[in-house]
Amino acid sequence: MNAAAGSAPTKVHVPLGERAYDILIGPGLIAGAGREIAARLKGRKAAIVTDENVAAHYLAPLTESLAEAGIAATPVILPPGEKTKSFEPLMRACNEVLAARIERNDAVIALGGGVIGDLAGFVAGIVRRGVRFVQIPTSLLAQVDSSVGGKTGINSRHGKNLIGVFNQPDLVLADSDTLKTLSPREFRAGYAEVAKYGLIDQPDFFAWLEANWQDVFAGGEARIRAIATSCQAKADVVVEDEREMGRRALLNLGHTFGHALEAATAYDSSRLVHGEAVAIGMVLAHDFSARMNLASPDDARRVERHLRAVGLPVSMNEIPGQLPGAGQLMDAIAQDKKVKDGKLTFILTRGIGQSFIANDVPESEVLNFLKEKHPG
Amino acid sequence: MNAAAGSAPTKVHVPLGERAYDILIGPGLIAGAGREIAARLKGRKAAIVTDENVAAHYLAPLTESLAEAGIAATPVILPPGEKTKSFEPLMRACNEVLAARIERNDAVIALGGGVIGDLAGFVAGIVRRGVRFVQIPTSLLAQVDSSVGGKTGINSRHGKNLIGVFNQPDLVLADSDTLKTLSPREFRAGYAEVAKYGLIDQPDFFAWLEANWQDVFAGGEARIRAIATSCQAKADVVVEDEREMGRRALLNLGHTFGHALEAATAYDSSRLVHGEAVAIGMVLAHDFSARMNLASPDDARRVERHLRAVGLPVSMNEIPGQLPGAGQLMDAIAQDKKVKDGKLTFILTRGIGQSFIANDVPESEVLNFLKEKHPG
Repeated sequence: MNAAAGSAPTKVHVPLGERAYDILIGPGLIAGAGREIAARLKGRKAAIVTDENVAAHYLAPLTESLAEAGIAATPVILPPGEKTKSFEPLMRACNEVLAARIERNDAVIALGGGVIGDLAGFVAGIVRRGVRFVQIPTSLLAQVDSSVGGKTGINSRHGKNLIGVFNQPDLVLADSDTLKTLSPREFRAGYAEVAKYGLIDQPDFFAWLEANWQDVFAGGEARIRAIATSCQAKADVVVEDEREMGRRALLNLGHTFGHALEAATAYDSSRLVHGEAVAIGMVLAHDFSARMNLASPDDARRVERHLRAVGLPVSMNEIPGQLPGAGQLMDAIAQDKKVKDGKLTFILTRGIGQSFIANDVPESEVLNFLKEKHPG
Repeated sequence: MNAAAGSAPTKVHVPLGERAYDILIGPGLIAGAGREIAARLKGRKAAIVTDENVAAHYLAPLTESLAEAGIAATPVILPPGEKTKSFEPLMRACNEVLAARIERNDAVIALGGGVIGDLAGFVAGIVRRGVRFVQIPTSLLAQVDSSVGGKTGINSRHGKNLIGVFNQPDLVLADSDTLKTLSPREFRAGYAEVAKYGLIDQPDFFAWLEANWQDVFAGGEARIRAIATSCQAKADVVVEDEREMGRRALLNLGHTFGHALEAATAYDSSRLVHGEAVAIGMVLAHDFSARMNLASPDDARRVERHLRAVGLPVSMNEIPGQLPGAGQLMDAIAQDKKVKDGKLTFILTRGIGQSFIANDVPESEVLNFLKEKHPG
């Protein structure tokens, strides 16, 4: 990682052999997107997949930057929200990309948050069995998590992200200026994933966040540093285990509980967004680890304290509306994770920054824990 | 390739590194499928994607064979026909495979012809971002072509096979007994692809087919030999160029014209099936090569004579109903193939078994040729 010097963006390289790519982080990257993309890709056509909200802010400057670099762009504008990660918008986007005559050397550009990135990456992976793919994540969540690592896909009625492909981008442009238009709630939700990297295996980063989170929220150098540290952490894990056969599962810290809560609230973002679900899920994962006598309850309280300080929800009780019972939450977990002989794989922890993959967590223990936490 | 000895199937190995797999060819392979699959895959669950017609013949024996090997199978039965290669059946199949709780080490098994293989391979490639995949092709076309090589996908309103993934199977079981239930028309259509391998680069194989096609149609050793030679030919090309950056394009001999004719008949199999379109397309490719002074017109007549002898259509005039004009056929070709500065890539030939990739065929020459052949 290079330190940000003057106006040069911070660069995180993801060394994945013939699928290697750069993540550039800093201000003004949308205005410079055409130059960066033209330097890396052969094609001179692009389809910009985005949503109505993001398009209003960034479609015009991106299109202009591409045109200046000789790249003709066609917009594919989808409705905002998690429901866009489903078959009908996927089909529509594929057809619009084909109508724009995007060829294998041309690019699909994802301009938006995690939903747009996941959908557009899937589109780029399947149109003509794969065209080039550029991520321009405009939310904190997308910049630190979903735009890096090549997981793409849509949701199914059987659960989140169950249909998709591994498709590494050719370039990620994380323009920190775009975070200025995020709502505080969206920024906080992305911050949950930033904190996650500390909790996985970087206790010093977590401590730094505890001390400096207000600067991260304020913007400037601390924010760039938090984003770059997160991207580097994710890149390191992805390089080690691109297709999630092992270590990559650590990135799911807090996500098993989190996904179940998202399913339980029918992906209704007015009740719960992904990062909030992960925040609650991380506290639950630390609490469950303490209950299994793996970690101290003090660590769970420390996680809870920090996430609450930044304004994130930290318990199921904070989710508006009625939640289904513990049994149904358990069913959602069982569909999300493989259950074998009554055991499931879970990311547990021995303390702050000491998470690990536990392959033999008894389903019954998880169910009992959920019943305690959510007697409803 | 091993010679078929006694009851041992003929084996063609496809050496694609960590994606290497075997193609087994011979009688009785459905009855032995459970053993072969259980020996190669860790999972003990499978979803059998098939169509109503094929299910009536082979679903019960396959399910039984799997059960004997300890593999629990769930059927996913789709309507027969090319229209199944579209988004709605794809979505339905994905959801049914997920409902069957197929995990990454479990298998999606394609039991059917090319349509089922292409769809099921796509499903296997995207459910959970990839589960194991077994091809059990039951048509000649699927056995010699679509089940080998990893191309999967569906059609779009913009053209055939425009949405999909490269997904190599883990095993192909080409049970020659299944060809007994094919209609003569279906068998002939598959035979067009067999003849194609001779025309691409094996003039001796084409001559052998001219002399022995009646034995191939009758069944027995000549048929197995024709299938195995075809699979080996395709495997050789795929190993050299898995993702179709170069040489693999040779497999499209006859297909550029063929795809345009399929589009022009709205994929209506009562008018034209894929192999018939390829037969006409191969004659057109030889005729066009002669017109460009690359090959002798005698070669085109020799191809025409052989394909007509086996009962395949060899000219656009034989397609029932009205065809759109040459201009519309040209548009279909331009969507199928990249056109750059008025030039397109085409598979042409210098004679029987001497095909090559021509990168700079003038669109105008193709259009004039089509106008001559199809003045309508």
